[in-house]
Amino acid sequence: MKLYDYWRSSAAYRVRIVLKLKGLEYEQIPVNLAKGEQRDPAFLARNPMGLVPALELSDGSLVTQSMAIAEYLDETYHHNGIFPQNSFALAEARAFCLTIVAETHPLYNLRVRKYLVEEMGHSDDDVTKWYAHWSLEGLSALEKMAENLPDRGEFLFGHKPGFAEACLVPQFYNCQRFGIDLSHLPRLTAAYNAVKDLEAFKAAEPENQPDAE
Amino acid sequence: MKLYDYWRSSAAYRVRIVLKLKGLEYEQIPVNLAKGEQRDPAFLARNPMGLVPALELSDGSLVTQSMAIAEYLDETYHHNGIFPQNSFALAEARAFCLTIVAETHPLYNLRVRKYLVEEMGHSDDDVTKWYAHWSLEGLSALEKMAENLPDRGEFLFGHKPGFAEACLVPQFYNCQRFGIDLSHLPRLTAAYNAVKDLEAFKAAEPENQPDAE
Repeated sequence: MKLYDYWRSSAAYRVRIVLKLKGLEYEQIPVNLAKGEQRDPAFLARNPMGLVPALELSDGSLVTQSMAIAEYLDETYHHNGIFPQNSFALAEARAFCLTIVAETHPLYNLRVRKYLVEEMGHSDDDVTKWYAHWSLEGLSALEKMAENLPDRGEFLFGHKPGFAEACLVPQFYNCQRFGIDLSHLPRLTAAYNAVKDLEAFKAAEPENQPDAE
Repeated sequence: MKLYDYWRSSAAYRVRIVLKLKGLEYEQIPVNLAKGEQRDPAFLARNPMGLVPALELSDGSLVTQSMAIAEYLDETYHHNGIFPQNSFALAEARAFCLTIVAETHPLYNLRVRKYLVEEMGHSDDDVTKWYAHWSLEGLSALEKMAENLPDRGEFLFGHKPGFAEACLVPQFYNCQRFGIDLSHLPRLTAAYNAVKDLEAFKAAEPENQPDAE
Protein backbone atom coordinates (compact mmCIF):
# COMPACT_ATOMS: atom_id res chain seq x y z
CA MET A 1 0.00 0.00 0.00
CA LYS A 2 1.04 3.58 -0.59
CA LEU A 3 0.04 6.45 1.69
CA TYR A 4 -0.25 9.95 0.24
CA ASP A 5 0.95 11.70 3.34
CA TYR A 6 2.23 14.99 4.77
CA TRP A 7 4.14 14.98 8.02
CA ARG A 8 2.11 17.76 9.63
CA SER A 9 -1.36 16.74 8.43
CA SER A 10 -3.44 15.67 11.45
CA ALA A 11 -5.65 13.47 9.30
CA ALA A 12 -2.64 11.69 7.77
CA TYR A 13 -1.12 11.34 11.27
CA ARG A 14 -4.28 9.46 12.34
CA VAL A 15 -3.87 6.97 9.50
CA ARG A 16 -0.14 6.54 10.19
CA ILE A 17 -1.03 5.57 13.78
CA VAL A 18 -3.62 3.09 12.48
CA LEU A 19 -1.14 1.51 10.05
CA LYS A 20 1.47 1.20 12.82
CA LEU A 21 -1.07 -0.14 15.38
CA LYS A 22 -2.07 -2.81 12.88
CA GLY A 23 1.55 -3.49 11.89
CA LEU A 24 0.86 -2.86 8.20
CA GLU A 25 3.74 -1.95 5.90
CA TYR A 26 3.28 0.97 3.53
CA GLU A 27 5.26 3.24 1.25
CA GLN A 28 5.03 6.95 1.96
CA ILE A 29 4.33 9.31 -0.95
CA PRO A 30 4.83 12.81 0.42
CA VAL A 31 2.46 15.56 -0.72
CA ASN A 32 3.81 18.90 0.46
CA LEU A 33 0.67 20.80 1.48
CA ALA A 34 2.62 23.95 2.34
CA LYS A 35 3.86 24.06 -1.28
CA GLY A 36 0.38 23.28 -2.69
CA GLU A 37 1.30 19.89 -4.15
CA GLN A 38 -2.22 18.66 -3.28
CA ARG A 39 -3.49 20.85 -6.14
CA ASP A 40 -1.44 19.00 -8.74
CA PRO A 41 -3.92 18.11 -11.55
CA ALA A 42 -2.92 14.42 -11.62
CA PHE A 43 -3.49 14.13 -7.86
CA LEU A 44 -6.78 16.06 -8.02
CA ALA A 45 -8.08 13.86 -10.84
CA ARG A 46 -7.96 10.87 -8.50
CA ASN A 47 -8.61 12.66 -5.21
CA PRO A 48 -10.88 15.62 -6.03
CA MET A 49 -10.86 17.19 -2.54
CA GLY A 50 -7.06 17.36 -2.81
CA LEU A 51 -6.61 16.33 0.81
CA VAL A 52 -4.28 13.89 2.46
CA PRO A 53 -4.32 11.13 3.54
CA ALA A 54 -5.21 8.96 0.59
CA LEU A 55 -4.38 5.27 0.61
CA GLU A 56 -3.50 3.54 -2.65
CA LEU A 57 -4.27 -0.17 -2.57
CA SER A 58 -2.21 -2.82 -4.36
CA ASP A 59 -4.55 -2.71 -7.40
CA GLY A 60 -4.00 1.03 -7.74
CA SER A 61 -7.41 2.10 -6.40
CA LEU A 62 -7.58 4.93 -3.89
CA VAL A 63 -9.36 5.29 -0.55
CA THR A 64 -9.69 8.83 0.83
CA GLN A 65 -10.85 10.33 4.16
CA SER A 66 -9.02 9.23 7.30
CA MET A 67 -12.03 7.61 8.95
CA ALA A 68 -13.03 5.71 5.80
CA ILE A 69 -9.42 4.49 5.53
CA ALA A 70 -9.35 3.44 9.20
CA GLU A 71 -12.63 1.51 8.91
CA TYR A 72 -11.51 -0.09 5.62
CA LEU A 73 -8.19 -1.25 7.12
CA ASP A 74 -9.90 -2.56 10.25
CA GLU A 75 -12.48 -4.52 8.26
CA THR A 76 -9.86 -5.86 5.81
CA TYR A 77 -7.15 -6.80 8.35
CA HIS A 78 -8.84 -8.21 11.42
CA HIS A 79 -5.86 -8.39 13.79
CA ASN A 80 -5.26 -5.57 16.30
CA GLY A 81 -8.78 -4.17 16.04
CA ILE A 82 -9.02 -0.40 16.43
CA PHE A 83 -12.78 -0.19 17.09
CA PRO A 84 -14.82 -1.82 19.89
CA GLN A 85 -16.77 -4.98 18.98
CA ASN A 86 -19.93 -4.21 20.99
CA SER A 87 -22.36 -2.26 18.81
CA PHE A 88 -23.16 0.48 21.32
CA ALA A 89 -19.51 0.94 22.31
CA LEU A 90 -18.70 1.09 18.59
CA ALA A 91 -21.29 3.86 18.14
CA GLU A 92 -19.79 5.74 21.10
CA ALA A 93 -16.28 5.36 19.67
CA ARG A 94 -17.38 6.54 16.24
CA ALA A 95 -19.14 9.56 17.78
CA PHE A 96 -15.99 10.37 19.78
CA CYS A 97 -13.84 10.13 16.63
CA LEU A 98 -16.31 12.15 14.53
CA THR A 99 -16.28 14.91 17.14
CA ILE A 100 -12.64 15.37 16.11
CA VAL A 101 -12.84 14.31 12.45
CA ALA A 102 -16.00 16.28 11.62
CA GLU A 103 -16.56 18.91 14.30
CA THR A 104 -13.12 20.12 15.32
CA HIS A 105 -10.26 19.56 12.91
CA PRO A 106 -11.97 20.67 9.63
CA LEU A 107 -12.78 24.07 11.15
CA TYR A 108 -9.14 25.05 11.47
CA ASN A 109 -7.59 23.01 8.68
CA LEU A 110 -4.98 24.73 6.47
CA ARG A 111 -7.44 25.61 3.68
CA VAL A 112 -9.75 27.36 6.18
CA ARG A 113 -6.90 29.31 7.79
CA LYS A 114 -5.70 30.42 4.33
CA TYR A 115 -9.23 31.54 3.41
CA LEU A 116 -9.54 33.58 6.62
CA VAL A 117 -6.29 35.40 5.80
CA GLU A 118 -6.39 35.66 2.02
CA GLU A 119 -10.11 36.13 1.34
CA MET A 120 -11.38 37.68 4.56
CA GLY A 121 -8.40 39.83 5.49
CA HIS A 122 -7.77 38.38 8.95
CA SER A 123 -4.47 38.69 10.80
CA ASP A 124 -2.35 35.80 12.04
CA ASP A 125 -3.53 36.67 15.57
CA ASP A 126 -7.18 36.32 14.53
CA VAL A 127 -6.37 32.94 13.01
CA THR A 128 -4.59 31.77 16.17
CA LYS A 129 -7.64 32.79 18.20
CA TRP A 130 -9.90 30.93 15.75
CA TYR A 131 -7.66 27.85 16.03
CA ALA A 132 -7.73 27.89 19.83
CA HIS A 133 -11.48 28.52 19.96
CA TRP A 134 -12.51 25.51 17.84
CA SER A 135 -9.82 23.28 19.33
CA LEU A 136 -11.04 23.97 22.85
CA GLU A 137 -14.72 23.78 21.93
CA GLY A 138 -14.20 20.27 20.52
CA LEU A 139 -11.80 19.03 23.17
CA SER A 140 -13.90 20.36 26.07
CA ALA A 141 -16.89 18.40 24.74
CA LEU A 142 -14.68 15.33 24.30
CA GLU A 143 -13.51 15.65 27.91
CA LYS A 144 -17.16 15.39 29.03
CA MET A 145 -17.80 12.54 26.58
CA ALA A 146 -14.79 10.73 28.09
CA GLU A 147 -16.19 11.37 31.59
CA ASN A 148 -19.52 9.82 30.55
CA LEU A 149 -17.89 6.65 29.16
CA PRO A 150 -18.01 3.50 31.27
CA ASP A 151 -14.62 2.16 32.34
CA ARG A 152 -13.77 -0.36 29.65
CA GLY A 153 -10.05 -0.78 30.34
CA GLU A 154 -6.79 1.18 30.35
CA PHE A 155 -7.64 2.96 27.12
CA LEU A 156 -10.69 4.98 26.03
CA PHE A 157 -12.63 2.06 24.59
CA GLY A 158 -11.00 -1.03 26.09
CA HIS A 159 -7.74 -2.83 26.68
CA LYS A 160 -6.11 -1.64 23.45
CA PRO A 161 -5.64 1.79 21.93
CA GLY A 162 -7.73 2.34 18.81
CA PHE A 163 -8.96 4.93 16.36
CA ALA A 164 -10.18 7.15 19.22
CA GLU A 165 -6.59 7.58 20.40
CA ALA A 166 -5.40 7.89 16.78
CA CYS A 167 -7.74 10.90 16.47
CA LEU A 168 -6.95 12.38 19.88
CA VAL A 169 -3.14 12.37 19.74
CA PRO A 170 -2.84 14.64 16.66
CA GLN A 171 -5.16 17.14 18.39
CA PHE A 172 -2.79 17.23 21.36
CA TYR A 173 0.14 17.64 18.96
CA ASN A 174 -1.59 20.58 17.29
CA CYS A 175 -2.42 22.26 20.58
CA GLN A 176 1.15 21.86 21.83
CA ARG A 177 2.41 23.37 18.57
CA PHE A 178 0.14 26.39 18.95
CA GLY A 179 0.70 26.78 22.70
CA ILE A 180 -2.87 25.88 23.70
CA ASP A 181 -3.02 24.67 27.29
CA LEU A 182 -4.98 21.43 27.84
CA SER A 183 -4.13 20.85 31.51
CA HIS A 184 -7.78 21.49 32.50
CA LEU A 185 -8.81 18.35 30.58
CA PRO A 186 -7.70 15.53 32.90
CA ARG A 187 -9.50 12.62 31.21
CA LEU A 188 -8.17 13.45 27.77
CA THR A 189 -4.71 14.13 29.18
CA ALA A 190 -4.73 10.69 30.85
CA ALA A 191 -5.89 9.09 27.57
CA TYR A 192 -3.09 10.92 25.73
CA ASN A 193 -0.45 9.96 28.31
CA ALA A 194 -1.53 6.31 28.14
CA VAL A 195 -0.49 6.08 24.47
CA LYS A 196 1.95 8.84 23.61
CA ASP A 197 5.08 6.76 24.27
CA LEU A 198 3.84 3.56 22.64
CA GLU A 199 5.92 2.51 19.65
CA ALA A 200 3.09 2.89 17.11
CA PHE A 201 2.38 6.45 18.26
CA LYS A 202 6.07 7.46 18.36
CA ALA A 203 6.68 6.05 14.88
CA ALA A 204 3.73 8.03 13.50
CA GLU A 205 4.83 11.37 14.99
CA PRO A 206 5.21 14.20 12.48
CA GLU A 207 8.86 14.81 13.39
CA ASN A 208 9.67 11.14 12.72
CA GLN A 209 8.42 11.19 9.11
CA PRO A 210 10.82 11.21 6.15
CA ASP A 211 9.35 14.46 4.81
CA ALA A 212 9.58 16.37 8.13
CA GLU A 213 11.26 19.74 7.76
CA MET B 1 -36.37 5.28 19.82
CA LYS B 2 -36.42 9.03 20.30
CA LEU B 3 -34.68 11.45 17.96
CA TYR B 4 -33.46 14.79 19.30
CA ASP B 5 -34.15 16.71 16.15
CA TYR B 6 -34.47 20.16 14.61
CA TRP B 7 -36.35 20.58 11.37
CA ARG B 8 -33.65 22.66 9.68
CA SER B 9 -30.59 20.77 10.92
CA SER B 10 -28.87 19.10 7.95
CA ALA B 11 -27.33 16.45 10.15
CA ALA B 12 -30.71 15.59 11.73
CA TYR B 13 -32.28 15.57 8.24
CA ARG B 14 -29.75 12.86 7.22
CA VAL B 15 -30.80 10.67 10.14
CA ARG B 16 -34.51 11.24 9.45
CA ILE B 17 -33.92 9.97 5.90
CA VAL B 18 -32.08 6.91 7.27
CA LEU B 19 -34.89 6.13 9.74
CA LYS B 20 -37.50 6.46 6.97
CA LEU B 21 -35.44 4.41 4.46
CA LYS B 22 -35.17 1.65 7.04
CA GLY B 23 -38.84 1.99 8.04
CA LEU B 24 -38.00 2.50 11.71
CA GLU B 25 -40.51 4.24 13.98
CA TYR B 26 -39.29 7.01 16.26
CA GLU B 27 -40.58 9.77 18.46
CA GLN B 28 -39.35 13.27 17.65
CA ILE B 29 -38.03 15.45 20.50
CA PRO B 30 -37.58 18.91 19.01
CA VAL B 31 -34.55 20.95 20.09
CA ASN B 32 -34.95 24.49 18.79
CA LEU B 33 -31.41 25.44 17.72
CA ALA B 34 -32.44 28.97 16.77
CA LYS B 35 -33.58 29.53 20.37
CA GLY B 36 -30.45 27.88 21.82
CA GLU B 37 -32.24 24.90 23.39
CA GLN B 38 -29.18 22.75 22.56
CA ARG B 39 -27.34 24.59 25.35
CA ASP B 40 -29.82 23.45 28.02
CA PRO B 41 -27.66 22.01 30.84
CA ALA B 42 -29.62 18.73 31.04
CA PHE B 43 -29.15 18.18 27.28
CA LEU B 44 -25.46 19.16 27.40
CA ALA B 45 -24.79 16.78 30.29
CA ARG B 46 -25.75 13.87 28.04
CA ASN B 47 -24.63 15.31 24.70
CA PRO B 48 -21.65 17.57 25.44
CA MET B 49 -21.27 18.99 21.90
CA GLY B 50 -24.88 20.17 22.14
CA LEU B 51 -25.60 19.21 18.56
CA VAL B 52 -28.52 17.42 16.97
CA PRO B 53 -29.22 14.73 15.96
CA ALA B 54 -28.94 12.48 18.99
CA LEU B 55 -30.73 9.15 19.08
CA GLU B 56 -32.03 7.82 22.38
CA LEU B 57 -32.30 4.05 22.42
CA SER B 58 -34.98 2.09 24.28
CA ASP B 59 -32.69 1.65 27.32
CA GLY B 60 -32.20 5.43 27.54
CA SER B 61 -28.63 5.49 26.19
CA LEU B 62 -27.73 8.08 23.60
CA VAL B 63 -25.92 7.87 20.25
CA THR B 64 -24.66 11.15 18.78
CA GLN B 65 -23.15 12.18 15.43
CA SER B 66 -25.23 11.52 12.30
CA MET B 67 -22.76 9.11 10.70
CA ALA B 68 -22.29 7.10 13.92
CA ILE B 69 -26.10 6.90 14.21
CA ALA B 70 -26.46 5.81 10.57
CA GLU B 71 -23.82 3.07 10.93
CA TYR B 72 -25.32 1.94 14.25
CA LEU B 73 -28.83 1.67 12.78
CA ASP B 74 -27.56 -0.14 9.69
CA GLU B 75 -25.59 -2.67 11.75
CA THR B 76 -28.46 -3.19 14.23
CA TYR B 77 -31.32 -3.42 11.71
CA HIS B 78 -30.09 -5.34 8.70
CA HIS B 79 -33.03 -4.77 6.33
CA ASN B 80 -32.86 -1.98 3.73
CA GLY B 81 -29.08 -1.57 3.95
CA ILE B 82 -27.84 1.98 3.45
CA PHE B 83 -24.16 1.17 2.80
CA PRO B 84 -22.66 -1.04 0.06
CA GLN B 85 -21.63 -4.56 1.06
CA ASN B 86 -18.40 -4.75 -0.95
CA SER B 87 -15.53 -3.47 1.18
CA PHE B 88 -14.02 -1.12 -1.42
CA ALA B 89 -17.42 0.29 -2.42
CA LEU B 90 -18.14 0.76 1.29
CA ALA B 91 -14.90 2.74 1.67
CA GLU B 92 -15.85 4.87 -1.36
CA ALA B 93 -19.32 5.48 0.07
CA ARG B 94 -17.93 6.43 3.47
CA ALA B 95 -15.43 8.82 1.86
CA PHE B 96 -18.25 10.39 -0.18
CA CYS B 97 -20.37 10.83 2.96
CA LEU B 98 -17.45 12.16 5.02
CA THR B 99 -16.75 14.75 2.32
CA ILE B 100 -20.12 16.20 3.33
CA VAL B 101 -20.20 15.24 7.02
CA ALA B 102 -16.62 16.30 7.80
CA GLU B 103 -15.38 18.61 5.04
CA THR B 104 -18.37 20.66 3.98
CA HIS B 105 -21.27 20.97 6.39
CA PRO B 106 -19.30 21.69 9.63
CA LEU B 107 -17.62 24.68 8.03
CA TYR B 108 -20.86 26.60 7.66
CA ASN B 109 -22.87 25.14 10.51
CA LEU B 110 -24.92 27.56 12.65
CA ARG B 111 -22.31 27.83 15.42
CA VAL B 112 -19.62 28.82 12.88
CA ARG B 113 -21.85 31.41 11.21
CA LYS B 114 -22.67 32.89 14.62
CA TYR B 115 -18.97 33.06 15.51
CA LEU B 116 -18.15 34.87 12.24
CA VAL B 117 -20.78 37.51 12.99
CA GLU B 118 -20.60 37.84 16.77
CA GLU B 119 -16.89 37.31 17.45
CA MET B 120 -15.26 38.36 14.18
CA GLY B 121 -17.57 41.20 13.17
CA HIS B 122 -18.56 39.88 9.77
CA SER B 123 -21.66 41.01 7.90
CA ASP B 124 -24.48 38.76 6.74
CA ASP B 125 -23.13 39.18 3.19
CA ASP B 126 -19.70 37.88 4.25
CA VAL B 127 -21.39 34.90 5.87
CA THR B 128 -23.43 34.17 2.75
CA LYS B 129 -20.23 34.26 0.68
CA TRP B 130 -18.55 31.93 3.21
CA TYR B 131 -21.54 29.57 3.02
CA ALA B 132 -21.47 29.47 -0.78
CA HIS B 133 -17.69 29.06 -0.92
CA TRP B 134 -17.51 25.96 1.29
CA SER B 135 -20.71 24.48 -0.14
CA LEU B 136 -19.37 24.71 -3.66
CA GLU B 137 -15.86 23.56 -2.73
CA GLY B 138 -17.31 20.38 -1.22
CA LEU B 139 -19.97 19.76 -3.84
CA SER B 140 -17.59 20.38 -6.77
CA ALA B 141 -15.24 17.72 -5.37
CA LEU B 142 -18.20 15.38 -4.84
CA GLU B 143 -19.24 15.90 -8.47
CA LYS B 144 -15.81 14.64 -9.57
CA MET B 145 -15.95 11.80 -7.05
CA ALA B 146 -19.34 10.81 -8.51
CA GLU B 147 -17.84 10.94 -12.03
CA ASN B 148 -15.04 8.58 -10.93
CA LEU B 149 -17.44 6.03 -9.43
CA PRO B 150 -18.19 2.89 -11.46
CA ASP B 151 -21.83 2.50 -12.50
CA ARG B 152 -23.32 0.37 -9.73
CA GLY B 153 -27.02 0.95 -10.44
CA GLU B 154 -29.63 3.71 -10.52
CA PHE B 155 -28.31 5.28 -7.34
CA LEU B 156 -24.83 6.45 -6.31
CA PHE B 157 -23.74 3.15 -4.77
CA GLY B 158 -26.15 0.57 -6.17
CA HIS B 159 -29.76 -0.30 -6.74
CA LYS B 160 -31.00 1.37 -3.55
CA PRO B 161 -30.52 4.85 -2.13
CA GLY B 162 -28.37 4.90 1.00
CA PHE B 163 -26.48 7.14 3.37
CA ALA B 164 -24.72 8.86 0.44
CA GLU B 165 -28.07 10.21 -0.77
CA ALA B 166 -29.12 10.93 2.84
CA CYS B 167 -26.06 13.22 3.08
CA LEU B 168 -26.42 14.75 -0.39
CA VAL B 169 -30.09 15.76 -0.26
CA PRO B 170 -29.76 18.12 2.76
CA GLN B 171 -26.85 19.85 0.96
CA PHE B 172 -29.13 20.50 -2.02
CA TYR B 173 -31.83 21.76 0.36
CA ASN B 174 -29.35 24.17 1.96
CA CYS B 175 -28.13 25.46 -1.39
CA GLN B 176 -31.68 26.01 -2.64
CA ARG B 177 -32.46 27.90 0.56
CA PHE B 178 -29.46 30.18 0.12
CA GLY B 179 -29.91 30.57 -3.65
CA ILE B 180 -26.72 28.72 -4.60
CA ASP B 181 -26.92 27.41 -8.17
CA LEU B 182 -25.89 23.76 -8.60
CA SER B 183 -26.88 23.32 -12.26
CA HIS B 184 -23.21 22.93 -13.25
CA LEU B 185 -23.06 19.68 -11.24
CA PRO B 186 -24.91 17.20 -13.49
CA ARG B 187 -23.95 13.96 -11.70
CA LEU B 188 -25.00 15.22 -8.30
CA THR B 189 -28.15 16.77 -9.74
CA ALA B 190 -29.05 13.40 -11.30
CA ALA B 191 -28.34 11.64 -7.97
CA TYR B 192 -30.55 14.20 -6.21
CA ASN B 193 -33.36 13.92 -8.77
CA ALA B 194 -33.30 10.12 -8.48
CA VAL B 195 -34.35 10.27 -4.83
CA LYS B 196 -35.97 13.62 -4.05
CA ASP B 197 -39.54 12.43 -4.66
CA LEU B 198 -39.20 9.07 -2.93
CA GLU B 199 -41.47 8.71 0.08
CA ALA B 200 -38.63 8.39 2.63
CA PHE B 201 -37.00 11.59 1.38
CA LYS B 202 -40.27 13.55 1.23
CA ALA B 203 -41.23 12.45 4.75
CA ALA B 204 -37.85 13.61 6.09
CA GLU B 205 -38.00 17.08 4.48
CA PRO B 206 -37.61 19.99 6.91
CA GLU B 207 -40.97 21.54 5.96
CA ASN B 208 -42.72 18.24 6.74
CA GLN B 209 -41.50 18.05 10.34
CA PRO B 210 -43.81 18.81 13.29
CA ASP B 211 -41.49 21.58 14.55
CA ALA B 212 -41.21 23.38 11.18
CA GLU B 213 -41.92 27.10 11.43
